[in-house]
Amino acid sequence: MPPTLNDIREAARRIKPYVHRTPVLTNESLNEKVRAQVYLKCENLQKVGAFKFRGACNAVFSLDDETAGRGVCTHSSGNHAQALALAARLRGIPAYIAMPNTAPAVKKAAVAGYGGQITFCEPTLESREAALAKIVAETGATVVHPYNDERVIAGQGTAALELLEDLPDLDIVIAPIGGGGLLSGTSTAATELKKNIRVIGAEPEMADDAYRSLKEGRILPSVKPKTVADGLLTSFGTLTFPIVRERVEQIITVSEQGIIEAMKFIWERAKIIIEPSAAVAVGVLWEKKIDLSGLKVGVILSGGNVDLEKLPWQS
Amino acid sequence: MPPTLNDIREAARRIKPYVHRTPVLTNESLNEKVRAQVYLKCENLQKVGAFKFRGACNAVFSLDDETAGRGVCTHSSGNHAQALALAARLRGIPAYIAMPNTAPAVKKAAVAGYGGQITFCEPTLESREAALAKIVAETGATVVHPYNDERVIAGQGTAALELLEDLPDLDIVIAPIGGGGLLSGTSTAATELKKNIRVIGAEPEMADDAYRSLKEGRILPSVKPKTVADGLLTSFGTLTFPIVRERVEQIITVSEQGIIEAMKFIWERAKIIIEPSAAVAVGVLWEKKIDLSGLKVGVILSGGNVDLEKLPWQS
Repeated sequence: MPPTLNDIREAARRIKPYVHRTPVLTNESLNEKVRAQVYLKCENLQKVGAFKFRGACNAVFSLDDETAGRGVCTHSSGNHAQALALAARLRGIPAYIAMPNTAPAVKKAAVAGYGGQITFCEPTLESREAALAKIVAETGATVVHPYNDERVIAGQGTAALELLEDLPDLDIVIAPIGGGGLLSGTSTAATELKKNIRVIGAEPEMADDAYRSLKEGRILPSVKPKTVADGLLTSFGTLTFPIVRERVEQIITVSEQGIIEAMKFIWERAKIIIEPSAAVAVGVLWEKKIDLSGLKVGVILSGGNVDLEKLPWQS
Repeated sequence: MPPTLNDIREAARRIKPYVHRTPVLTNESLNEKVRAQVYLKCENLQKVGAFKFRGACNAVFSLDDETAGRGVCTHSSGNHAQALALAARLRGIPAYIAMPNTAPAVKKAAVAGYGGQITFCEPTLESREAALAKIVAETGATVVHPYNDERVIAGQGTAALELLEDLPDLDIVIAPIGGGGLLSGTSTAATELKKNIRVIGAEPEMADDAYRSLKEGRILPSVKPKTVADGLLTSFGTLTFPIVRERVEQIITVSEQGIIEAMKFIWERAKIIIEPSAAVAVGVLWEKKIDLSGLKVGVILSGGNVDLEKLPWQS
């Protein structure tokens, strides 16, 4: 069952003690550049540096005590792994993370730093799923999928809920799409709260499976995506696809150069650190594929986890 | 006359339509590291990327119409020049900026971008003052000093006013010191609002003229300071010195390595961009020169203007 506005409201109450209510920032240079009123919902300033903490937190705190006691698990090397590890630590339960042995040291350290118990596997989907199945068999832990999970989607929707509480008269909300968890939650919250609001998904041109999937009306896999926005490599899940198809006006794709320009613009002008995946949503603002003139536009800045030693505008 | 709490409150009312009420962020990693509750007042997210906009704005909007009509001027190559240019543009009056011809292109562009009229001079104090005197003679513009000015000090104090409105039970407030404008305004607001609050100044070890001045009881010049915190090279003014001496508990100096570590820590963990001068205040938290355990500590992150092509932790 797709989550309802009520599920999102319940999620918001459930996770409130643990998450940051992130600030909404405005920036004159950005407004002038795109001739719109832009409101940046700063999930890069969320705990673990990404909106993913909302969904993980909602999933972890939704479990009954007995189930929770056996722990939670996932396979991921990204923000979801960190988010799940921290949420589990806050509940005082174990988090088991299957992670490819090729994952960067900094990501392993981050998960371990939040108390996650890492099982290494080969960097193939088969190996990751086998490692996860083994964890479940041995521990009875609950699998928390990074996006194809109602509790996770409801949790992600709380960012848009807050945004529309702060700014009930937004015309458009833009959020990036990878597997569709954030966009599903965002579009559910936004369209239920305001009838005529437009919700736009932002996707890298070089990983445009969501764009193509909506065109063709079926879930297409992400084929060898190669983009700087490494948080958006996944493709739709069975739960996210119908929600996005129903509630999202369109997906707009952004070039690699557009992503990097948007990222640097936000760093330079808004003085906040966003990761390339978040910059994809900003990139939509100047792709000129939709007319934003004079509109009030909310943009969900999904995360801020970046390797500061290796910035995409440096050679 | 040193500004009073009332002057700061008036400044807050005067500049309210123009400035951002900047968010106060918290960060678990930082709290764990320093074993205190730290509240980051994000003036890096202020317009023009620095608290300087508050003081410039208060000065510009304090002028009567006739005086304002002749414009404002200063000599500066830093954040104050940008701040004054934007404040003047918002009032619809000219801003004349005397700027050394050696200033980086990016700073010239920033001032010009806000509509400031630049007069170039040699990079010596004599040449800068001569250029400024010429501007005043020709235009009748009002000089707005970057810190030795009551209106500017009152404006800078509005950041601490907001911080204490949000968190009335802070134990300590830390702010960086260059010429002392921010620290004067901060300490006036804080000590007037809360009797026993402690106010600490943060200064680079390599530019420790304020520390030495307080020790010796007289204004000592900044002698060939060489620090990554290039916003803190100036020394006390006649107006700021007595305020800081009266209201500030002590100045704590921070090593260059400490400044860079603090800067990188905030970028990585708090996901916001701070400039080295702001990092000096964060550096105080782990210099271990004062015991902060269990205390509620406000830190004023003064600015976020950084050249993203040249980061201090990169070779």
